[in-house]
Formats: sequence, structure tokens, C-alpha cells
Amino acid sequence: MESTGVTIEDVNPHLIEAQYAVRGQICVRAQEIEKDLKEGKKYPFSSLVYCNIGNPQQLHQKPLTFVRQVLALTSYPDLVNLVPEGTFPTDAVERAQQLLNANPGGSGAYSVSKGIPLVCKDVADFISRRDGYPCPASEIFLSNGASQSVQNVMMVFSGHPDDGFLVPIPQYPLYSATTSLYGAKLVGYYLDEENRWGLDLQELEKSIAYAKENHIHLKGLVIINPGNPTGMCLKEADMQDCIRFCIKHKLVLIADEVYQENIYVDTAHFVSFRKAALDMGEEGKCAQIVSFHSISKGFFGECGRRGGYMQAMGFDAAVQAQLVKLWSINICSNVDGQVALDVMVNPPKEGEPSYALYRAERDAILSSLKRRATQLCSALDALPGLSCHPIDGSMYAFFKVLLPKKAVEEAKARKVKPDYFYCEKLLENTGIVTVAGSGFHQKDGTYHVRTTILPPEEQIESVIMRISAFQKWFMDQYSE
Amino acid sequence: MESTGVTIEDVNPHLIEAQYAVRGQICVRAQEIEKDLKEGKKYPFSSLVYCNIGNPQQLHQKPLTFVRQVLALTSYPDLVNLVPEGTFPTDAVERAQQLLNANPGGSGAYSVSKGIPLVCKDVADFISRRDGYPCPASEIFLSNGASQSVQNVMMVFSGHPDDGFLVPIPQYPLYSATTSLYGAKLVGYYLDEENRWGLDLQELEKSIAYAKENHIHLKGLVIINPGNPTGMCLKEADMQDCIRFCIKHKLVLIADEVYQENIYVDTAHFVSFRKAALDMGEEGKCAQIVSFHSISKGFFGECGRRGGYMQAMGFDAAVQAQLVKLWSINICSNVDGQVALDVMVNPPKEGEPSYALYRAERDAILSSLKRRATQLCSALDALPGLSCHPIDGSMYAFFKVLLPKKAVEEAKARKVKPDYFYCEKLLENTGIVTVAGSGFHQKDGTYHVRTTILPPEEQIESVIMRISAFQKWFMDQYSE
Repeated sequence: MESTGVTIEDVNPHLIEAQYAVRGQICVRAQEIEKDLKEGKKYPFSSLVYCNIGNPQQLHQKPLTFVRQVLALTSYPDLVNLVPEGTFPTDAVERAQQLLNANPGGSGAYSVSKGIPLVCKDVADFISRRDGYPCPASEIFLSNGASQSVQNVMMVFSGHPDDGFLVPIPQYPLYSATTSLYGAKLVGYYLDEENRWGLDLQELEKSIAYAKENHIHLKGLVIINPGNPTGMCLKEADMQDCIRFCIKHKLVLIADEVYQENIYVDTAHFVSFRKAALDMGEEGKCAQIVSFHSISKGFFGECGRRGGYMQAMGFDAAVQAQLVKLWSINICSNVDGQVALDVMVNPPKEGEPSYALYRAERDAILSSLKRRATQLCSALDALPGLSCHPIDGSMYAFFKVLLPKKAVEEAKARKVKPDYFYCEKLLENTGIVTVAGSGFHQKDGTYHVRTTILPPEEQIESVIMRISAFQKWFMDQYSE
Repeated sequence: MESTGVTIEDVNPHLIEAQYAVRGQICVRAQEIEKDLKEGKKYPFSSLVYCNIGNPQQLHQKPLTFVRQVLALTSYPDLVNLVPEGTFPTDAVERAQQLLNANPGGSGAYSVSKGIPLVCKDVADFISRRDGYPCPASEIFLSNGASQSVQNVMMVFSGHPDDGFLVPIPQYPLYSATTSLYGAKLVGYYLDEENRWGLDLQELEKSIAYAKENHIHLKGLVIINPGNPTGMCLKEADMQDCIRFCIKHKLVLIADEVYQENIYVDTAHFVSFRKAALDMGEEGKCAQIVSFHSISKGFFGECGRRGGYMQAMGFDAAVQAQLVKLWSINICSNVDGQVALDVMVNPPKEGEPSYALYRAERDAILSSLKRRATQLCSALDALPGLSCHPIDGSMYAFFKVLLPKKAVEEAKARKVKPDYFYCEKLLENTGIVTVAGSGFHQKDGTYHVRTTILPPEEQIESVIMRISAFQKWFMDQYSE
């Protein structure tokens, strides 16, 4: 249709500029192929494997029984009276009742904007136990997934066209997209691939110098730990250097800690930035940290429910009031997501009826993720032309692809990025949907691909075999 | 805590400017009083009645059984095998299964960003039936409540500091808050209180002139129909004038139609802006309209689930692609909200097991809302110093308060707005939480209050008596 009214010329230029690779071009191509398959068109595979996004239940991860029981009971409170006794464990019935009581009107009523007070308190208690330092519930803000909190906090601290954020390269595309949307500047700092994607303080200082030269007023430093897409887990001493850096440069430390439960090696150990700061004593007290967590990742995998929280420390009352106001403009996050979050931060305890099953389900998921992470990374690393560090945690393998010159040239001739060209070939030959490294940003002249480690165990061997066969074919095809 | 890092000076000035009265100052005061009551402090009432926000289930509106059954079954798919046959009606079981199949991985998995295709199709079919013109599913975008769609669309069409939106006065504060947040200009147009808050085309043209003089580039016209806070329902001929006006001035018609089911008088009849445009034939074909609807209002009242949709018509492929991208940055709206939305747009049909109950529950809610609307408006209108039009629809009474000079002076001495002063006195004397008209904007020198019509029927008489007693006392106290 030709439009005579509002056109693309009228669309927010910040939106036009924004990119979100995880659900971008390669997804569109995947949807086309899915349609082709339905219509009987032939590909060398019969179905797609979506490794572009951390969406575990789409790839058959079983939800935890207790959270689903509580959700059924809060959604349909009459249910408990309609089923034979013993259909639900007593702790699920009690939890549902507590949550219904905590939000007058139940799960169909708007909650307090920051979140149901009981859920905020349970989140605060979870943080207190995790870190060994008491956390007040006033610091907790619930949101529709962690993404909404990230977007909110970046909105709070931008607003002038010269405001900027330090963002790692590679990064999770939410940060670049959100920076674009709010018209702020993204200043990248490179993670060190040679050093297992470690964080380098000199790189950070270089970025500060770059920002000064370019009159960018930096407001925050984004750190994703465990890393997305890198899988790297930071050590506390390095984190404390970052905290000192933020205090020195008056930056809010924007800590994406949604993979805190996803640690797969004994040599790595998750420490929150909050704990790292409080462990520093007086020196760390003035740190300003926002930290995010989510029900979508970890062993929970409840992505569709869009539950998450932000914990914000070190802000004065005036800033805190602005956070509260922004949350109030959004009315409240969805209550089902709040209910699921409550279960995550306050799971069944030893001695309670649901404890054994909850623990068994959790451990099965985490140990399976660990096996898949190890298997996939070492297989990728062994292939000609690919290299992949073993990952400490998170849900991704971010592997380097040495693209033959001929492939790079063919991509250029087709006017697509060389790593996108690779991902598209991979998709068309194997049905595996991945994301090109350019979506996460990468050092010029290097090419990467992110895949999740989430295909179910009975499929992971076949995924590896498909990638192996493809990679050999690709190298044959494009090497001189 | 005194902060040495980021302070209020670093906060987005657009956020600082934004106001959201529905959950603003009067709510803070209400929460203080609630705390006082818990601590045993005496007030002339024992509990608060929250009439500040359309949150029906908080005020004991019973949820519809069918939607809760479907939600229990999608949340806990094993349930159907654990309960005796007949616990759930077969149509609830089937619907849950269809929805689970439609989102691979079920309700714990992210959906397609625009929304589960089946739900989008069911929304499109609902619109087609309602309007008598087929609606393609590609025009449907699901969101966490209608609010998120509103915020998204206002972001899409702003981005330059001189972009602006025409917004009614009085308006729902989401529009003013969102305009502020995105740094756009709000250009008000007055609704005509003398003419039952009708829409006056001359007022609109005046606002166009004002925008031109002030170099504001208008992008959209917001119309809330049925009106919030006014309760006015527009006639199709007037709507078509607005559509012509938008086409002439190249404005997107931003149609907030979330109260489309809330019509209480036989003289009013809801027509969508989409139907009004399509009824115009060739002339209306180039109209660009976004329309919002929600599971929070109507007879559904599922506010806590945050389900809603936007239908966007008349945009070319380039603009459509930007909408899709923005939705993809937000990953997807919560799936439980999508499930509830599906039930709303595709309810049980005649002949299906759940039809009779669904219909009875729906009719009971709507007829009760109608009785309360009539009772409350006529009671308010009869009180000395108050006037209130009978409302056609929505969930609010927006009544005018003739404030005695002494009250206005006392408010000024206390440095609060006179209508806020009135609402605070009302709260402190009756426990009824309302919102001051200034939060919705109003003509200078006039004062209004918005109350919902939602207190349950067994309470509405007492609410009216409390307001009556208060109003008489207030007039005695403040009249010369």
C-alpha cells in the first residue's frame, strides 16, 4: 500500500537505528524456511532447532512442578476445593494462598507498582541470604522479565543526546538496542577473547578517554556476569576493580546477573556485584549498583511468564523517587510473573512436602545443562576453522569462525555481513538457527556465532554432527 | 544517604517532568493512612476504598470462571490427568490444549514477539466480526496490557524534540506521562463539558493552529472512546469528522478503545474508529489508525495479567517493519496475558459447555456496573457544589467541584492544588481514594475529581452516603 499520511520519514530515528539481532534477520529467514517446510519444500532437515534465543522450554526443558502448581492455584483459586485432597501438596496450596492474600483481589488485580510487597520482601531475603548482607525490600523493583528493568534504568539515566553507557563488546543486543532507542551513546569496551573473554581495566580506561574526547557524558557501566554471549564468570577481585572504577568515574554499575545460577565448572563461582562491593567495606559503600535477575534463565526457564527484578542500591531518596515514579507509569508487572518469581527466590525448603521433587528437578536441569555446555564447546573447538572457549556459565557458546577469503568475498558480493552469511548457510544446510556475532558487536575483522547450549540431550549429539558435517563442507567449499 | 555518585542531576529530565496522578500523591497519602490504620490510629473509617484506579477485582469483582480454568490448565498441563473427569468443562480443556500447541514449549516459552499467531488470528477475527470488515492478523500486536502498546506507538512516532501529540483535556494520564517520557510535546484540545464532554472539531483546529505557531510537528491525535475520565461515547458521524481531520493533517489516529464493552445507556452505541473509517468507503481508506484494547477493563477485569493488543491499520511496509522491530526488542508480552486475551476475543459459543455460565457471569458484571454508574452519577450530581453528567460508558465518574474561595485559599497557603486539597480532605474524612482533576488536566479555574464506579454493590450506598456527608460538611466548613 502506498501511504499518503505518516511514512517512515515520521518514524523515530532512534528506533530506525536500533537493531536486535537475537530476533532479527536470521529469524526472519528461519520463519521463511519453516513456512517452506510446511508447504513440502525440501531441505536437508525436517525441522528447525532454535538456538538463537535462550528459550529452554521451547526446546523441551520441563518446567518445575511446584511453580506450575502454585500458578494453577493462584489462577483458579476455586480449584483447591474441586479436586480430591492430595492433588496438590500442602506447601503449594499454602504458598498460593499467601500470594493471593498478599495482593488484594488476587492475580487478576493490579499490584503495587514496584511489585507485591510480599514478593519484594522474598526477593530481598533471597539476596540477603545469597550475599550475607541484609537487603531492604525498598531496593527491589519487579518487572516483566529483566529486560523491562534494563530498559527502565537506561531510560532513567539518559535523556540528553550526549549521555552514554559503557557496554561490553561482545554484548547482549538488548543493551545496544536500548541505548539506540533512548538516543544515548554506546561506548564499547572490548572483552579479551585471548584471555577467555576476560575484562580488562585498561580497556575500560581507554573507553573513558574516548568518551571524554567525544564529549560523551557516561552514566553507567554495563557488565554481564556470567557473560552473555561469552559464558565467562568474573572473579571477585576483578569485580572489585570494576567497582572502584565506577566510583572513580561516577558511573552506575549496571550488573546483568541473570545467569547467576548457570555455572558449570568448579573453578568458577558466582559472586554478585552487591556482595563484592559490600565485601570492600567502607570503600565499597558508595557504589551505585543496579542488578537484574529473571525467572527466564537459571534452571527455571519460565521465559513466557516475563518475571524479573531489579535491585537498586546506593541511590539517594530523590533518585529512588524517580525510579518509583517510572514504575508507577507502567502500573505494575504481570502478577503471574511475580508469583513465579516468588517461588524462584523462596523455593520449598528441606522438610517441606515439595522439597525433594523441586530439588531433583532443579539438579537434573542444571547437570544436564552442564553436560551440554561441555559437550558442545569442546566439539565446536575441535572443528577446523572454529574455536570456542570452554564456558564457565550462562546458556551460550560464542565461537570464533575463521572465514575463508572466498566466503568473505561472496558475502560482500551479496551485501550481507560475512558472519551473517555463515549463519545463513548453517541454517539452510542444518536447520540450526544461530545469531551472527555482528549482532553482539565484535572486533573488526573477526567473526563469531552465538548458539545456545539448549537443544535437549537426545538432540545435542545430532546438532553437533550436523554442525561438524556443515563446517567440513563449508571449509571445502570456500577454502582456496 | 548522601550520594557522591549519580544524583538527581543525572536523571532524565523527561522523567522528572512526567507525572502519573492515578498512582501519584494521593496514593502515597492513602498508603500512609493505611499504615496508620494498621497501627491503630483512629480515622472516621476502618478501611480505605480505592476508587483511584480501574482495578475491579481488587474491589471484589469475581473473575470469569472460564478464563481461570483455561489459565490453570495452561499453567499446569499435567493437571487435566490428575483430576476426576468433569472437573473442567471439555471446552476449557480443548482451549488450553490449542493454546499450548500454538506456542511451542507452552506458556513458559517466549512466544513470537508480536504474539502467539493463533491469538493474533483470534483477535483479528474478533475485530472482523465486530466491525463487519475483515481484519488481517498481521495488523495485530499483543502487549503487556494496552499501556505498553500506547507507550510503544508514541515512541515510534516521536524522537525529535518538536514532535507532538494532540491529547484531549481531560485525558488519561498515561498519555501525558508517555509524551513527557519520550520528550515529545503535548498539545491539548478541550472536550466540551457543557456538551457532556463532547468532542469539538473547532477545538481541534485551534490546536493545529497553536502547534503551527509553536513549530510543533504533530504526529498523532489521541481519542479515548468511551472516554476516560469523561465516560462519553462518541457518535459515528463525529468520529468520521475526526478521521477526516486526521487524514487532512496527516495524523495517526491513536484510538484508545479499552472501554468498548463498558456501555451503560441505550442511547449510546460503541463504534470502533476502524469501522467508522471503513464505513466511509474510499475516503476513509487512507486513514492511519492504531487502536488499543485490553483484558483489564470491560467485564473481564483481569488487570493483573497485563494482556492487551494494538491493531494498526494504514501503514506501509516500512513503518510496519519498525513496529515489528520494536516489538521484537521487547521479546514478547507475557503468555498468560495472551491466553486470557484469547478467551476474551474468542469466548465460549452457544452450544458449548461453558457458554451459559460465561454469559451469566458477563451479564451480571455488566448490569451491576450499569446500576452503579447510574446510582453514583445521579447521587453526585444532586449534591450541593458538585455536578456530574450521566455517563454513557467506561468505569469512571468525573465530577465538577465548585470549590469555595476559602478552600482555594487554604489550598494555596498549603501549596497544594485546590482539587488535590479537596481529594485529600475527602480521603481523610471518608477513606475514599480518588484522583484530582488536575492529574487529567482541566480548564483553568475549574476543579474536578475522578472516581471509579467500581465499589461493590453492597458498598456503593455507603460510599455515596460518605461522600454526601463529607460534601455537606465541606461546604459548611468552607463557604463564607
